Amino acid sequence: MNQDYIVPNSWSIIEEGFDAERVQSSESLFSIGNGAMGQRANFEEHYSGHTFRGSYIAGVYYPDKTKVGWWKNGYPEYFAKVLNAPNWIGIDVQVNGEMLDLATCSVRNFKRELNMKEGWYNRSFEATLQNGAEVAVNVTRFLSLVQDELGVIQYNVTPLNRSAQITFAPCVDSAVKNMDANWEETFWEPLDSQHNGNEAFVTARTFKTHFTAATYMHNSILVNGADAQVLPTHVEKTDKKVQLTYVVEANINDTATIIKFGGYTVSTNHPEAELIHAAKAVIASAKAKGYDALLEEQKQAWAGIWEMADITIEGDVKAQQGIRFNIFQLNQTYLGKDPRLNIGPKGFTGEKYGGSTYWDTEAYCIPFYMATKDQQVARNLLTYRHNQLGKAIENAAKLGFTNGAALYPMVTMNGEECHNEWEITFEEIHRNGAIAFAIYNYYRFTGDYSYIPEKGMEVLIGIARFWYQRATFAAGKDKYVILGVTGPNEYENNVNNNFYTNYIAKWCIDYAVEQLARVKDEYAADHERIMSITNLDAAEVRQWQKVADSMYLPFSDEFGVYLQQDGFLDKELIPVSQLDKAHRPINQKWSWDRILRSPYIKQADVLQGFYFFEDHFSKSQLEKHFDFYEPLTVHESSLSPCVHSIQAATLGRMEQAYTFYLRTSRLDLDDYNKEVEEGLHITSMAGTWMSIVEGFGGMRVKNDTLHFEPRIPEQWQGYSFKINFRNQVLKVSVHPGETRFTLEGGHDLKVVVNGKEITVQPNELVTV
Amino acid sequence: MNQDYIVPNSWSIIEEGFDAERVQSSESLFSIGNGAMGQRANFEEHYSGHTFRGSYIAGVYYPDKTKVGWWKNGYPEYFAKVLNAPNWIGIDVQVNGEMLDLATCSVRNFKRELNMKEGWYNRSFEATLQNGAEVAVNVTRFLSLVQDELGVIQYNVTPLNRSAQITFAPCVDSAVKNMDANWEETFWEPLDSQHNGNEAFVTARTFKTHFTAATYMHNSILVNGADAQVLPTHVEKTDKKVQLTYVVEANINDTATIIKFGGYTVSTNHPEAELIHAAKAVIASAKAKGYDALLEEQKQAWAGIWEMADITIEGDVKAQQGIRFNIFQLNQTYLGKDPRLNIGPKGFTGEKYGGSTYWDTEAYCIPFYMATKDQQVARNLLTYRHNQLGKAIENAAKLGFTNGAALYPMVTMNGEECHNEWEITFEEIHRNGAIAFAIYNYYRFTGDYSYIPEKGMEVLIGIARFWYQRATFAAGKDKYVILGVTGPNEYENNVNNNFYTNYIAKWCIDYAVEQLARVKDEYAADHERIMSITNLDAAEVRQWQKVADSMYLPFSDEFGVYLQQDGFLDKELIPVSQLDKAHRPINQKWSWDRILRSPYIKQADVLQGFYFFEDHFSKSQLEKHFDFYEPLTVHESSLSPCVHSIQAATLGRMEQAYTFYLRTSRLDLDDYNKEVEEGLHITSMAGTWMSIVEGFGGMRVKNDTLHFEPRIPEQWQGYSFKINFRNQVLKVSVHPGETRFTLEGGHDLKVVVNGKEITVQPNELVTV
Repeated sequence: MNQDYIVPNSWSIIEEGFDAERVQSSESLFSIGNGAMGQRANFEEHYSGHTFRGSYIAGVYYPDKTKVGWWKNGYPEYFAKVLNAPNWIGIDVQVNGEMLDLATCSVRNFKRELNMKEGWYNRSFEATLQNGAEVAVNVTRFLSLVQDELGVIQYNVTPLNRSAQITFAPCVDSAVKNMDANWEETFWEPLDSQHNGNEAFVTARTFKTHFTAATYMHNSILVNGADAQVLPTHVEKTDKKVQLTYVVEANINDTATIIKFGGYTVSTNHPEAELIHAAKAVIASAKAKGYDALLEEQKQAWAGIWEMADITIEGDVKAQQGIRFNIFQLNQTYLGKDPRLNIGPKGFTGEKYGGSTYWDTEAYCIPFYMATKDQQVARNLLTYRHNQLGKAIENAAKLGFTNGAALYPMVTMNGEECHNEWEITFEEIHRNGAIAFAIYNYYRFTGDYSYIPEKGMEVLIGIARFWYQRATFAAGKDKYVILGVTGPNEYENNVNNNFYTNYIAKWCIDYAVEQLARVKDEYAADHERIMSITNLDAAEVRQWQKVADSMYLPFSDEFGVYLQQDGFLDKELIPVSQLDKAHRPINQKWSWDRILRSPYIKQADVLQGFYFFEDHFSKSQLEKHFDFYEPLTVHESSLSPCVHSIQAATLGRMEQAYTFYLRTSRLDLDDYNKEVEEGLHITSMAGTWMSIVEGFGGMRVKNDTLHFEPRIPEQWQGYSFKINFRNQVLKVSVHPGETRFTLEGGHDLKVVVNGKEITVQPNELVTV
Repeated sequence: MNQDYIVPNSWSIIEEGFDAERVQSSESLFSIGNGAMGQRANFEEHYSGHTFRGSYIAGVYYPDKTKVGWWKNGYPEYFAKVLNAPNWIGIDVQVNGEMLDLATCSVRNFKRELNMKEGWYNRSFEATLQNGAEVAVNVTRFLSLVQDELGVIQYNVTPLNRSAQITFAPCVDSAVKNMDANWEETFWEPLDSQHNGNEAFVTARTFKTHFTAATYMHNSILVNGADAQVLPTHVEKTDKKVQLTYVVEANINDTATIIKFGGYTVSTNHPEAELIHAAKAVIASAKAKGYDALLEEQKQAWAGIWEMADITIEGDVKAQQGIRFNIFQLNQTYLGKDPRLNIGPKGFTGEKYGGSTYWDTEAYCIPFYMATKDQQVARNLLTYRHNQLGKAIENAAKLGFTNGAALYPMVTMNGEECHNEWEITFEEIHRNGAIAFAIYNYYRFTGDYSYIPEKGMEVLIGIARFWYQRATFAAGKDKYVILGVTGPNEYENNVNNNFYTNYIAKWCIDYAVEQLARVKDEYAADHERIMSITNLDAAEVRQWQKVADSMYLPFSDEFGVYLQQDGFLDKELIPVSQLDKAHRPINQKWSWDRILRSPYIKQADVLQGFYFFEDHFSKSQLEKHFDFYEPLTVHESSLSPCVHSIQAATLGRMEQAYTFYLRTSRLDLDDYNKEVEEGLHITSMAGTWMSIVEGFGGMRVKNDTLHFEPRIPEQWQGYSFKINFRNQVLKVSVHPGETRFTLEGGHDLKVVVNGKEITVQPNELVTV
């Protein structure tokens, strides 16, 4: 049974009714973020029930001491973790001296709404306290997109059955712990705390990494909407925490309100000595605008994002809610403004994984950001890897590679590896392939070749060198083989000749060699600079080419398919459909050895290769491989169903494509993997976007031209999406039997629809 | 550079000169034990330098909370560890008010001697303290073989340059920590402490496992050998510790002595309420005998062990010292009296590995104990596994096996798994094979078939069931394969069709089926009982047989050898000899992936199979496989050189056999693996014994008859060993060109020497 308490709604995520069992799941689902910071949907007031409190600042991490059972050479001793940041949302509330706590009072009409269109989160309920007082509570919270160091809370309490003394005790507190700490250490060193009138500040610095953050708050108290000009009656202050206490007397049906501005100013963006000053400036600006204007600003900013990124689906509210939830969360996590940042797999919604950057960024997220934002955003994501090339070379050197070979980490924050399982850290090396592929993909989509001579070429060289050294010549086969890897399908470890890995390794070398030639021809000065700093010569390139030319690819003549790895056919190929449901998900039910010797595939592996390199294979080859591997795939990775959805659509299997689509788009809303309380699956949400645009819409870029093969699931009456293609925005609207194109831009655009070229003129509707 | 500070001596381990850098290594090398308890050679007096204090009680363990980076289903949440026991050896010594501490005073004529012939450890030195006092110190310590709850220390201090007040402050202390604790918790709960006159007791209980131990001491003070009748002048007592203080005034050249009796009485051997009473009885008995008689008793007891177990080597004192050190340590670790105990890989000398029982016991130790002790000892070791069959079935069930299939743990104390690395815990399943093989080996050597119908058959059935279920039918090969294993060579993980594993799996089934038939014929009642309790029928046995009959064994036609595993020939087969020394040992220099894709073999794997099943293969097959695999073997396991030594000898390659012999016999004395400070490699010491007896002596048992093919390394003038064969003791003495046999026993013994049968009569010398 998947979870199904989220009320279907096209623009909002809604929960109705209070259930303590759902609190942690909802804390994930109703998370808010603005790219610079984010937080789980924890209650502002005290809650003595089970809760997972989390607030996070983009780019602020902590190198936790590594925990492994048995040490292996090459593991880092410390690795960077997403860091739980100081708490600025806390507001203890008392009614006639009793603490408001949803775990101890009786709750009615509880409702949460995350309004994705406008970018705010609201929670309302009525509670009867143990002292008999009944209150209505209504809280709105948002993190400003416009001023990304600012968060805003409006907390309203209305006595319903008797007049009441309402006490608000808002705080800022740096005494936080990470759920995910390896050794139960604290990560923040308190530096300073201060307060002045309605403002308070706590400054704390992370141990080791020395990020300093000032956490601030400013409070104002209103009664029935009018500023009550109240000052705190009591202050509690330690080196880690300041808590101010306000007392308001409210009659029945009077509404006592606290408006709290809060957030962080961080040493990554300000000189350390000026953090308080910077925080005061944010407060001053917020006060000047006031709550209503700030909320209006927020609505406008989100409208701007939706204008470009929205996908509409007609006739299927759950699908509509799913895709918007995905697009909303991606934009809450990463807005592309800061090349130091990347897209963590849990965004600001949890801290399960160390580090923030996986191959997910290159394999799944870049297409979304390329098509829904300015192309500079995708370029920033590429630049992030270029900036970390030195560390990737160090990382490879730790594993014995030489001569500038680069191995990007499996997981990273600052370029260093953040993961310690030998079968992943040392062997899931295909990640290097996706990083090269993203460079190709960026150029293919944007036409901006300049990135390659300026930055990308060095990355391609480091990666080519890695594959060249990582291959082994197998005398008996007279071929180069790649031994001991883990492919995208992590339900196989330490296998030889994983098709996907070998194929992308070969491609990386071929692509690097081609681009070297082009850069030499067209960017001679860059070429000279690159050859010099990388100490590369033609003889070395010829050595690489030999490996690429003779790369071994396992193939079965019997089945006519490339094999996922050597020995795959020794397995008992029993389809997933014949597996007893009591054994699913196998990663929760089976021991690891049983998973490994089974034929079951965690996520697209050979098919991932067919997705990346679709035009290297015929449609009948795709079909054969899809029919061979799809029945063995358990999709226990969030990154899997989107690829299968796209390929099912490409093969015209719309029912299957739709099923996969629903699974990927509502993975968290319906909690398919029973783990949503730990946080959301942010990066896979970009795969959902691909399922619609590339799967149903059939969008491809070939020879600088957009191609479409629009299809529509039976369940839908229509859908639409927009593509920012080379600084013009094409809107595609698909209905049964017809597809409409409109263009915002300055000049005609040729697109190919179902193989036929058409021309779309600015602001003119074309119907096909 | 290996370590070389141990003075060559045929009967003693000797260190001369004090070097603080060597303290921890020597603490391992000079360890003492008596099968029931043991301890590292820590100083009795306070030492502020680096030291690894360790004292251990056989069979007393602690289930520590598991530490792994990423959890896998099937791992135990807790696992048993060797437990550091309370300290009873401590004696703080002050000279004129200054603490004697080798780290702070000037030390001359420091010497340690571990007298293996007589079973005692002595340490002597002269020290000048910071206050100018010079003293000579001489300490003898032993753990009684006769009364295995008793340890004895005689600690002598002689002022050399001025009369001095000598203070002895002996203690018992349960406030110990494990070096190897995962979470830095303490494992002992203090229950009681008490003292009375010269006696003191601390009682503590392990958390969770609830082993209770009373740690006791009794002290007497002597001056110049005469009892000074001194009582303590001061007592310090907490719930964990009692320390008594004695003061002695000594003139120049007077010797002040403390004789301390100490040790443990444990709830595994006494009712908990009687532990103090039992300790008092030990003290009373020790007092009655007195120090000199106790030491004499100790010498006699060790003489009895050596009488049976000694191996002499003429003309090579380092080789002689090596083999005696090995035999001595094995006997210190395990004497075979208690079927609840087993042979830990570090014995009582360290705590690096959890658990105490590995496949080492069956594969390496049982032959030694069979031939040098009463056959009941080997039977006890087999019974240990029979007693844990239920847990082995539970362990297999955790991994998804059914119907009474048994998987013995990789490492265990009480039958539960104590190791958590998926590639070992779940995949190094060949251990089951050695456990079955030991049953066969026991019967082959002793002729005692009764063990099989009584106990062994059930174990063989559980193991056969496991292999039957673990095999996979590979349609393409029309064979059964075994996927995803780690063989004895742990430098390969998760491989398919490891030759050794597949071969022993097939053998286990074949052997179980044969024994079922024999038991049915000869022990009908047992057969009926066994079939009934195991719920076995003939149809199931036929299913097993199908798997054994069609087991796949990877073979290379090109090289004419069985392959270690599928795909082995894809590796670059560069011999170890061509490997740069800077890369050795590879397990310290290379990352794990590099080790895995290399061809290098940690320990005999295919050759281990040829060792177990020597008579299944011809000598020319052995030679071909030895020549193929030996050059690729790095011997980075202590268990490897002995097998290669035996096989080199079998092939007449005496120089190579000798080199391997030295490496195995002096592994710890010369610290080949640079880790002796963590403890000794006890189980591999039995392999050293095999190198001489089976390698050089060429001993085999075939058809109830001892066979020999004696050879002698050039470096030796002669060697001799004894074999307890079916309750008669055959002494074999080999010199160049002649071998002498003598027999202690009641009847003639036929033996085959170099293929020729001879008869040895009791007490008559036969020379061949």
